[in-house]
Amino acid sequence: MESVNFKSIKINGGFWQKKQQMAQKTTVHAVYDRFYDTGRVSAFKCEKDSPVRPHVFWDSDVAKWIEGASYLISLGMGDKDLEEKIDAIVDDIEKNQLPSGYFNSYFIPCEPEGIFKNRDCHELYCLGHLIEGAIAYKEATGKDKFLKLMEKYVSYVEKRFIIDKDTAFVTPGHEEIELALIKLYDHTKNEKYLDMCRFFVCERGKRNEGLTDWSEEKYNQSHKIAKEQWEAEGHSVRAVYFYCAMADLALRDGDGELKTACEKIFDDIVTKKMYITGGIGSTHMGEAFTVAYDLPNETAYSESCAAIGLVFFAQRMLILTGEKKYADVIERVLYNGFLSSTSLDGKSFFYQNPLEIVTKNHTRHGSVKNKDPLPPTERVEVFECSCCPPNIVRFLPSLGSLLYTKDENAIYAQQFASSVAKITLGEHEITMTQKTSYPENGKISFSADSDVTVYVRVPEYLDTGKIGKNGYVPLHLRANEEKSIDFEIPIYLVEANPRVQANAGKVALLYGPVVYCLEGHDNICDLYNIRIDRNTDFTVMQNEALGVPTVTVDAYVRPESSALYSPISRERRRIKATFIPYYAFANRGESSMQVWTLIE
Amino acid sequence: MESVNFKSIKINGGFWQKKQQMAQKTTVHAVYDRFYDTGRVSAFKCEKDSPVRPHVFWDSDVAKWIEGASYLISLGMGDKDLEEKIDAIVDDIEKNQLPSGYFNSYFIPCEPEGIFKNRDCHELYCLGHLIEGAIAYKEATGKDKFLKLMEKYVSYVEKRFIIDKDTAFVTPGHEEIELALIKLYDHTKNEKYLDMCRFFVCERGKRNEGLTDWSEEKYNQSHKIAKEQWEAEGHSVRAVYFYCAMADLALRDGDGELKTACEKIFDDIVTKKMYITGGIGSTHMGEAFTVAYDLPNETAYSESCAAIGLVFFAQRMLILTGEKKYADVIERVLYNGFLSSTSLDGKSFFYQNPLEIVTKNHTRHGSVKNKDPLPPTERVEVFECSCCPPNIVRFLPSLGSLLYTKDENAIYAQQFASSVAKITLGEHEITMTQKTSYPENGKISFSADSDVTVYVRVPEYLDTGKIGKNGYVPLHLRANEEKSIDFEIPIYLVEANPRVQANAGKVALLYGPVVYCLEGHDNICDLYNIRIDRNTDFTVMQNEALGVPTVTVDAYVRPESSALYSPISRERRRIKATFIPYYAFANRGESSMQVWTLIE
Repeated sequence: MESVNFKSIKINGGFWQKKQQMAQKTTVHAVYDRFYDTGRVSAFKCEKDSPVRPHVFWDSDVAKWIEGASYLISLGMGDKDLEEKIDAIVDDIEKNQLPSGYFNSYFIPCEPEGIFKNRDCHELYCLGHLIEGAIAYKEATGKDKFLKLMEKYVSYVEKRFIIDKDTAFVTPGHEEIELALIKLYDHTKNEKYLDMCRFFVCERGKRNEGLTDWSEEKYNQSHKIAKEQWEAEGHSVRAVYFYCAMADLALRDGDGELKTACEKIFDDIVTKKMYITGGIGSTHMGEAFTVAYDLPNETAYSESCAAIGLVFFAQRMLILTGEKKYADVIERVLYNGFLSSTSLDGKSFFYQNPLEIVTKNHTRHGSVKNKDPLPPTERVEVFECSCCPPNIVRFLPSLGSLLYTKDENAIYAQQFASSVAKITLGEHEITMTQKTSYPENGKISFSADSDVTVYVRVPEYLDTGKIGKNGYVPLHLRANEEKSIDFEIPIYLVEANPRVQANAGKVALLYGPVVYCLEGHDNICDLYNIRIDRNTDFTVMQNEALGVPTVTVDAYVRPESSALYSPISRERRRIKATFIPYYAFANRGESSMQVWTLIE
Repeated sequence: MESVNFKSIKINGGFWQKKQQMAQKTTVHAVYDRFYDTGRVSAFKCEKDSPVRPHVFWDSDVAKWIEGASYLISLGMGDKDLEEKIDAIVDDIEKNQLPSGYFNSYFIPCEPEGIFKNRDCHELYCLGHLIEGAIAYKEATGKDKFLKLMEKYVSYVEKRFIIDKDTAFVTPGHEEIELALIKLYDHTKNEKYLDMCRFFVCERGKRNEGLTDWSEEKYNQSHKIAKEQWEAEGHSVRAVYFYCAMADLALRDGDGELKTACEKIFDDIVTKKMYITGGIGSTHMGEAFTVAYDLPNETAYSESCAAIGLVFFAQRMLILTGEKKYADVIERVLYNGFLSSTSLDGKSFFYQNPLEIVTKNHTRHGSVKNKDPLPPTERVEVFECSCCPPNIVRFLPSLGSLLYTKDENAIYAQQFASSVAKITLGEHEITMTQKTSYPENGKISFSADSDVTVYVRVPEYLDTGKIGKNGYVPLHLRANEEKSIDFEIPIYLVEANPRVQANAGKVALLYGPVVYCLEGHDNICDLYNIRIDRNTDFTVMQNEALGVPTVTVDAYVRPESSALYSPISRERRRIKATFIPYYAFANRGESSMQVWTLIE
């Protein structure tokens, strides 16, 4: 299977067009402005006496923003000023890059003696993102200065890490360079970059590269060599970036062992370590995967970057294996754990995406200043470690890449969005038009300018094995003939595996692919006191202020009581409980929220 | 109302005799041995170059042990060597006490320049326990050297804190001196000690005495003056010790405002902040009370010392008000949150008493070394901060004091234990005999050598207002005539207030006053997957190894599944679930455990 790059696809209506327009109009500018305010942009000037001390990972923040801005330019959605801003940054890099090729806006002015001395200092992570930004910018504008600067830096990395081997570590503490090198190989066809990627992927785990005070080797996937890693472990963003590179390499090298490892890891994630939202990483401690079925809701870490990384990994696995389940997971993440990251106005962001907020618990440690680490209850515009916002800036414009895959004979519609795509099949370029209001409406229409078969993915929640073949419905299109498939979008209740402690006795409500949640704004009681009536009907309304469909159900609450403990009673009060999409929570001021609700 | 001191009461059979015999045979020696091993005993030699650096609170550990050992001696249960050990320690104190009267085994050798400079260094806390130990030892043996040394120290405290006012703080960071001064007043009738107590109680909260890096004023009850404190706040042990002193002072001064404050605080605890076990303090963060209804089970702090302190507070409130509810709370703590502190063999102890253990969660942070603070799953013999074990040593021998109260005309049987008590009523000394196998059997027989009325408390779980008057059943005893009351001890399910998030959808099983729990040893499945059948019968068996009654119920579990998320199903597997008393958990090796279980 092959993917179809977003640059050949114009999303021109419906759910995701609105999100891309938000990215164009608001998010790309809001993120730049906050990076400018916080000194991240001017850090590229590498001034020794700058009043703001840069952080070792700041380059990656700006690089991801450059990548996202470049994608908007590629789509014809880039304002002129984006290019000017990027050019200025590239000029700064050119001016301050060391003669060796090295560049890092922290180490050059602040700690030049520390270059490649500390595995945890994100230098190769930053380089990875700079490479991805440079490729994106060249592809968007044709300007190749940035990419040439980065290729020079990559050569220096090759010299130090692979030829001279005189660095204090062999593989970086935070993966990213690996998948960037694959992109650089794909872009340049220069085998050196594939070799370097293979080096960094395969050397990891071969030796003890030292631990920090607080981490163990699993933290950065250094506990085993790649091929022997069969479970998702450690820092979840580092992990999925690494797994992406493993899948990339498995595909390009035809490496069956690496492919098997990737398949096992992916299954470990989605059958044991993934929130229903597609979020991953259950704990703030090391921002990490934990043990199987450990999915606490209130303290969920579920980092926005990890959700994005899981999509990256799933998309690679879809290409590598052609199996539908990977596209199903992408859909789960897209509408839930990814989208919750960003406010509906596109200006502010969650780093953590909890599945439950009990506001009173945030005041529980009144007598001590050092609080328990409950995730923030509201989005903010920028973080001290602000990796997520620019990841969103690069993800939204590029999500067209997720719509289609293809093999020699056919096209697979994996995700749904009104769009026009140019897809090369064999020697022919086909223009494929998709029209849909998915996920609010299940009708999806396809037409093409040549005869072609498009296999339409049956969404996971409808995929009982009875529709289509292997989960895809084939539409045999004649040139310029429109054919539709009309999925009935259900509202339904889901329960978690009985081994998940946090969800025992509880259910989640979904509307198609969208996970719903209760918010205090719509439900005036303790949300954890609500029990959904097992025989409820579902009433759909529109919340005009949020612009989202709501679902109201019959439910019960136990009545108030003055006693702390009482003999059990069946006394219940009937109420209506109103759910909103999880992705829309925390857009009306601080509130309690929960995804998993008791059922009776 | 007045209390009846344990020294006049011989517990001579049943549940609590076994516990007192365990204290005599095992606990008092085990705690001394560990204190000896860890250098706490030799610290009293105040050697400058001791290889073991003492901690500022070590004196209090040993002092509480002395108090407990003295109580055993008072009961005629003290081995000869206890007195020798105490004498040796007292000799060391005499030898090393400063000419001023000051004594602390840390400050004298290690930091003499730091005396009374740091509010958080537990000097007056240690003195409080030394006073209590000295009084107990004098009452047990008639030897008054220890008490005289301590009275000299108290005079020095009066000089520095009250007359010269040249100390760095006015009230101590950890309360305890206050209630010790009341005991000293009661013992000596010297008004000076009552005045000093009043000073320390009433000055607290009058001024900002400085905060540590991590605490707020609530932490040590310094946020308001005593009379204005209407809610339980801060470090739970400090809090209940302080509330004890407030109640003591309210009684002795006839202070209605202090009494009101105590009543409100007590109600705040028992209606909003107390575990069903009688444990208090919901969080390890500051070992503190948190907000109302915040009673997490797995991370419960519920310190053993706090349970003991709550009994102290409740007993004082019972005397101050004559209201039955205080005796009900004492019973709740005794059979549950207190007793869980100690292993069935009497050798090892919990500091924290969680209400749920999920063993796999203790391995959840495999990738980072700094773990989340889940409580330990097994008891240990000594802690670095080992306040709880000697508190247990002094509590068990003295619990006879909880059996009876009296007014001018009658005796109140508040707690139940086979015993012979000498009780002075007006001018007569009455010998009161109680016989019972409570709580396993509800028959309680009383006889006395004179005519007397004994009011027998109806246990809270039977107290529907239909038995007796104000919750007491009067037995009018003729001299040497035995009368019995026969309570039917029920097995029953309890639910928590709907505002308690942690227990939503769940129930607890109790057998009389005893809270029961599930352990992994008896139930081979995830305990949180178990749902009690609402219509279950209860089958009582005896666990011979533990020596406790078990209760088996009908229950369901959801069957295993390979999917992480599935449409809801009613599929259930019937099982039997077996409960043991909560106080007996963690006596068979590490295991999962839970008090609150789902119900269907």
